[in-house]
Amino acid sequence: MEKYLFKTTFLLLLAMASCNMDQGKLESEDQKSDYISFVDPFIGTRNMGHTYPGATAPFGMVQLSPETNSEPMYLEDGSYNRDTYRYCSGYQYEDSTIFGFSHTHFSGTGHSDLGDMLIMPVSGQLELYPGKAGFEGGYHSGFSHENEFSEPGYYSVQLDKYDIKAELTATERVGFHKYTSQDEGTMHIVLDMMANIYHHDDKNVWTFIRVENDTLVTGYRQTNGWARTKMVYFAMAFSKPISDYGHKRYEDVIYNGFYRRFDEENNFPEMAGRDIRAWFSFDGNDADPLLVKFALSPVSSAGALNNMIAEAPDWNFDQVKEETQAKWNQELSRIQVETLDDTDKTTFYTALYHTMLGPILFEDEDGHYRGLDQNIHQSDGFVNYTIFSLWDTFRALHPLFNIIQQERNNNMVKSMLAHHDQSVHSMLPIWSHYANENWCMIGYHSVSVLSDAVAKNTTDANLDHILEACLNTSNVAYFDAIDSYRELGYVPADKGSSSVSKTLEFSYDDWCIAQIAKARGKDDLEDEYRDRSKYYQAHYDETTGFMRPKYSDGTWVPEFNPLNTHGQGFIEGNAWTYSLFVPHDIESMIALMGGDSAFTSRLDSLFNMRLDDKYIEHTEDITRDGIIGNYVQGNEPGHHIPYLYNFSGHHEKTQERVRMIMDTMYGTGPDGLCGNDDAGQMSAWYVFSAMGFYPVCPGSDRYEIGSPNVISANIKLENGKTFSIRTINQDREHVYVDKIELNGQVLDRTHLLHDEIMAGGELVFHLR
Amino acid sequence: MEKYLFKTTFLLLLAMASCNMDQGKLESEDQKSDYISFVDPFIGTRNMGHTYPGATAPFGMVQLSPETNSEPMYLEDGSYNRDTYRYCSGYQYEDSTIFGFSHTHFSGTGHSDLGDMLIMPVSGQLELYPGKAGFEGGYHSGFSHENEFSEPGYYSVQLDKYDIKAELTATERVGFHKYTSQDEGTMHIVLDMMANIYHHDDKNVWTFIRVENDTLVTGYRQTNGWARTKMVYFAMAFSKPISDYGHKRYEDVIYNGFYRRFDEENNFPEMAGRDIRAWFSFDGNDADPLLVKFALSPVSSAGALNNMIAEAPDWNFDQVKEETQAKWNQELSRIQVETLDDTDKTTFYTALYHTMLGPILFEDEDGHYRGLDQNIHQSDGFVNYTIFSLWDTFRALHPLFNIIQQERNNNMVKSMLAHHDQSVHSMLPIWSHYANENWCMIGYHSVSVLSDAVAKNTTDANLDHILEACLNTSNVAYFDAIDSYRELGYVPADKGSSSVSKTLEFSYDDWCIAQIAKARGKDDLEDEYRDRSKYYQAHYDETTGFMRPKYSDGTWVPEFNPLNTHGQGFIEGNAWTYSLFVPHDIESMIALMGGDSAFTSRLDSLFNMRLDDKYIEHTEDITRDGIIGNYVQGNEPGHHIPYLYNFSGHHEKTQERVRMIMDTMYGTGPDGLCGNDDAGQMSAWYVFSAMGFYPVCPGSDRYEIGSPNVISANIKLENGKTFSIRTINQDREHVYVDKIELNGQVLDRTHLLHDEIMAGGELVFHLR
Repeated sequence: MEKYLFKTTFLLLLAMASCNMDQGKLESEDQKSDYISFVDPFIGTRNMGHTYPGATAPFGMVQLSPETNSEPMYLEDGSYNRDTYRYCSGYQYEDSTIFGFSHTHFSGTGHSDLGDMLIMPVSGQLELYPGKAGFEGGYHSGFSHENEFSEPGYYSVQLDKYDIKAELTATERVGFHKYTSQDEGTMHIVLDMMANIYHHDDKNVWTFIRVENDTLVTGYRQTNGWARTKMVYFAMAFSKPISDYGHKRYEDVIYNGFYRRFDEENNFPEMAGRDIRAWFSFDGNDADPLLVKFALSPVSSAGALNNMIAEAPDWNFDQVKEETQAKWNQELSRIQVETLDDTDKTTFYTALYHTMLGPILFEDEDGHYRGLDQNIHQSDGFVNYTIFSLWDTFRALHPLFNIIQQERNNNMVKSMLAHHDQSVHSMLPIWSHYANENWCMIGYHSVSVLSDAVAKNTTDANLDHILEACLNTSNVAYFDAIDSYRELGYVPADKGSSSVSKTLEFSYDDWCIAQIAKARGKDDLEDEYRDRSKYYQAHYDETTGFMRPKYSDGTWVPEFNPLNTHGQGFIEGNAWTYSLFVPHDIESMIALMGGDSAFTSRLDSLFNMRLDDKYIEHTEDITRDGIIGNYVQGNEPGHHIPYLYNFSGHHEKTQERVRMIMDTMYGTGPDGLCGNDDAGQMSAWYVFSAMGFYPVCPGSDRYEIGSPNVISANIKLENGKTFSIRTINQDREHVYVDKIELNGQVLDRTHLLHDEIMAGGELVFHLR
Repeated sequence: MEKYLFKTTFLLLLAMASCNMDQGKLESEDQKSDYISFVDPFIGTRNMGHTYPGATAPFGMVQLSPETNSEPMYLEDGSYNRDTYRYCSGYQYEDSTIFGFSHTHFSGTGHSDLGDMLIMPVSGQLELYPGKAGFEGGYHSGFSHENEFSEPGYYSVQLDKYDIKAELTATERVGFHKYTSQDEGTMHIVLDMMANIYHHDDKNVWTFIRVENDTLVTGYRQTNGWARTKMVYFAMAFSKPISDYGHKRYEDVIYNGFYRRFDEENNFPEMAGRDIRAWFSFDGNDADPLLVKFALSPVSSAGALNNMIAEAPDWNFDQVKEETQAKWNQELSRIQVETLDDTDKTTFYTALYHTMLGPILFEDEDGHYRGLDQNIHQSDGFVNYTIFSLWDTFRALHPLFNIIQQERNNNMVKSMLAHHDQSVHSMLPIWSHYANENWCMIGYHSVSVLSDAVAKNTTDANLDHILEACLNTSNVAYFDAIDSYRELGYVPADKGSSSVSKTLEFSYDDWCIAQIAKARGKDDLEDEYRDRSKYYQAHYDETTGFMRPKYSDGTWVPEFNPLNTHGQGFIEGNAWTYSLFVPHDIESMIALMGGDSAFTSRLDSLFNMRLDDKYIEHTEDITRDGIIGNYVQGNEPGHHIPYLYNFSGHHEKTQERVRMIMDTMYGTGPDGLCGNDDAGQMSAWYVFSAMGFYPVCPGSDRYEIGSPNVISANIKLENGKTFSIRTINQDREHVYVDKIELNGQVLDRTHLLHDEIMAGGELVFHLR
């Protein structure tokens, strides 16, 4: 049969658009500074960090990164595969097998999804199935870390099986692949549309692929994963003409209509089905590398193609790499630190890098995006973002943005409001990604992010709109027993799990809403929510001295063990930790718990006790590595705890604890993170603490002062000012703060105010 | 648990938009004429007519009609269910069970799909599964034709099981339901998103439903049926508030993420999955009927809601019915006939009605539509249409449009060009619907439609664009052995089925392209395609006197039986019929077949022979009822044959045959059609023949004159003129034409020219 005649329309389009791309250039005094050399994307790629080493632009929609696993979520015997958790980011440093490079990845999450549009370059005999690590057969290839390299915006690896060097870079919306083969034979690209992170038999919903011409392929995939109704569209361009192509469809096809009249599997340009693997072959007559541009869109394949034309019109891999790395240098230069050694510097800048991998951009270059209602919207007056892991990120990540990424955080606030407006529940996001609410974790911490932005004056969103969204969200009766919470003043244990954690977090969130009501001058609402913010008190059990679950009838749940994380009314933290989660009313909490001295002792006990192994095993996100006593840095509920000593008059204990945590829980190397990075929260904790302060209560304008481990830090603010942190006597042993001067004046308090940072100036720590 | 708090945003929208709807009003001198009373939508609903009796607007996107079957495409033993063919339109007159009312239906096709968004009103105990006709259980209800009524734009039936009167009407994009119950108990609406026409286990791809507020529900469904990747979006509004609602999901759910934290099945406003049935309950405190407005969109649920706001803002069922019926009267008034009796008038106006059920409108009120590439496009300078059953409709339906629906046909031409532009094959539609090419049947007859529009000057589409689309389409090498056709001058039998039919139809289509090339002044192309238009001659076998299949090596396929439809190189017609398919080169064909006398004898034999039952059984679309001798009216390949006598000097035989066919093959009553109406082609044949002429060769400007069965006909042209047909001596016996006068001048030929019609005037038939 004669070859399919390729259309040339799109190619012309691409060629025509290749002239107007200079706007992508960044100009900055900091461009020449080489911050990216102090970022090691491998940090956190071993065990539970759940970071990925691949290429991405700051806050970019494309995260182009290798997959070292292809295990399904359920094993053949039907049992749940624990590896699903291990491979949240698709990559584990211990592995020696690569299955390909897919275009979407979470950074540091504790649950998985994505892994869209996997590309694998192969040569020689084409094998369409991935195979299994450690076994012959399949398209996977061995690799070794010796031949692997990663820095912000660039990743490369040698694929041993094929002797192909794979190099990856990315713009915000386009993944750029470069495959160089030593072999002059035919190279094939496998486009595995069955590959998923967290895959299971019904994850794929539909796949649609069109070979538009001899260098352009478009399509989409819909999946039913953590994001229940997720659409990802793509446009893929090759630097060489396709010589042959085809696909296999793997599901049982009951009905195929009149498509049966074609040889659909070979050189037929329309492919569709649930489970498809496609391949594209390239004659190997020259030694030039094969380049692949892979653009994504949440809207349409036309949108993806437009994104490609706008962001990567040329076949210049090096130029894209250079431009994206310049953007990284620009972003990383927002905080310029001197450290005691290069290891600290790498820890710091890698942490800073990890804070800029999400929330991600989620709109096409023309402003169109898919909304929660699955309709296509145009962002009006903002840029739309997605991946809101809010139970994690309200704590320090968004507060960090409110200092160094105010414009982006404003866009994130508006993206959350758009989510609310599109929500049939009229709710702000809980944990949302890719135009879906996945309902993970508790609380309604969007209100914290909104309240923090209001407190710090970083948003120009309408205050009434913000308030309305918060009120709506906090009154959705069927969400996590809010009805009972409102009625009884606490979430009863008989109305669902994690009841104490929910009450505590709702109380804090309600305090945030009270702040917004106050800012809006709504006294009644402020009072109402200030009342609700005290509901946490209902759980305090004087007998045990802990927050404790309660039934609807007001009686305590018996057989209470404050060390146990499971079945005790808490989630991802035990009563020792969670009892301290009252960030908005710390003085009352201390009083409740017996006053300063008792409280200090309680904190000491927390840090000094030895937690039995049985409380650590089988607890997600917690390993011995991430624990000091019963204090868990590897998970979020306790992140503010080291700073609580400030409130009971023992700031020196805050200082020694935060230095200890920085020293022991963060480091370089693949295992440099002691738990999931949690979409940047773990890293944001470090960035703040390294500079010597931390936002214990987002929604307030106050940062608790700890003890910096940097020698100095200059925060380059978007208002053009610089806030500098300087230290006197900085070294590993001098962790205590003798004196603090702000702009030459001694600071007689252990906290810093947001306006003091925004005004620019100098904060000097005298250490001993 | 407290009830879900409904959002009110959308309701407000609806209310606000209810004031600007007068533009829908039609004003016309003919408005008062009651043409719709001469339409019986039940004609063709028994056996193979495959028409539906439900409510639709002219060329409307919504066809709201009852389903009387719910059998799957494959039976439990895996065998193919012949009923799938019987239920192309969802309804069979013999049935006495209704399963609900769905919103999309083909009219008269020979293959099935659609049946989207089935609504069933029930009272008393809610049953969510359809059940089986003749068996207890399930939501289906018995009904009788005594309590059933249908006219254009309106359908009603009494649902015996529930004592509910169901009434349906529709605008172009909105189905409007009215359910009146004698019972004052709770009424439920079942929204069965698993219901499909032509359903099979993997037809449903994804379903998404949102309860936006207490009267509005939105969502979409994607199916994998005849249209492989089909999306239909909806917005459904109720006239009474929902008191309770819920859904069941029927597929095996492997993964449901954190949705498990909700009671998803009850009063939870977000539903998604593959196989879903939803229900909505309404407290029965008043005797008012429950009204349901159900808007569709090919683009988005937002588009569907906008369509509802634009077309049916109010809760006035009668007004919508009145407006839509006024539109029908307006459309039907385009041809005003006097007939020998009311039966003829009903046959005529029902046929005319059936010509206006497709192609259907396929864009939102704002001009957005889903294209073949699955991207959303904005129609620019045209209105987009879909459902192109071109192997059928190129023959007489589009030629009829070129007289009475020129504006719409121009839009259809442009819709076909848009399809070409979006096609990855660069092909015009073959059989396309709902943004999909379903590849049914042979030839590339879009070129005939385009050529006819060019010949008759009814399109303002760019002629170069038209020519390019035709050239591209006719050169897609891998489509139906076009490569061999170009190389050898015929489609060889060893390169696929129906080889002779393909060559014959390609040849005719190529003649059409030659006409376009000529109009464009491209002599070389005209010559090339005129050469191709002669390729039919390669199949003429002098030995047998028939067109006969040939192998690639030029030898005839042995064991040839010209009576057999199967395995002989033909499709839906045998060699007797198909050998006569050379509409563009009839004189050469007659010469090839031995000259006028031999040709006349051949036609006589065709009509007079007795076809053995074995050739009729197991042949789709053909029954004894639709056959005269070996002539088949019930299927398309022979539709021009009765008019061929005109070319061999025996116009009197054309006259008697067409009168005989009209008398015996068309009639009133459910079995008034002798075969599939085929998207209006069968009916268009009747409308033309009843007026006394027929377009034997679309693409030419010539109509062959037969013998009208009307007393008179006034064709109201869009140019403001009227072309009138008058008869002298019309009755059942006077079928022969003695003399024809055009505008008072005797016409000395047996054909009429298009310009003569367009100029207005009077054609008088003197009959004997």
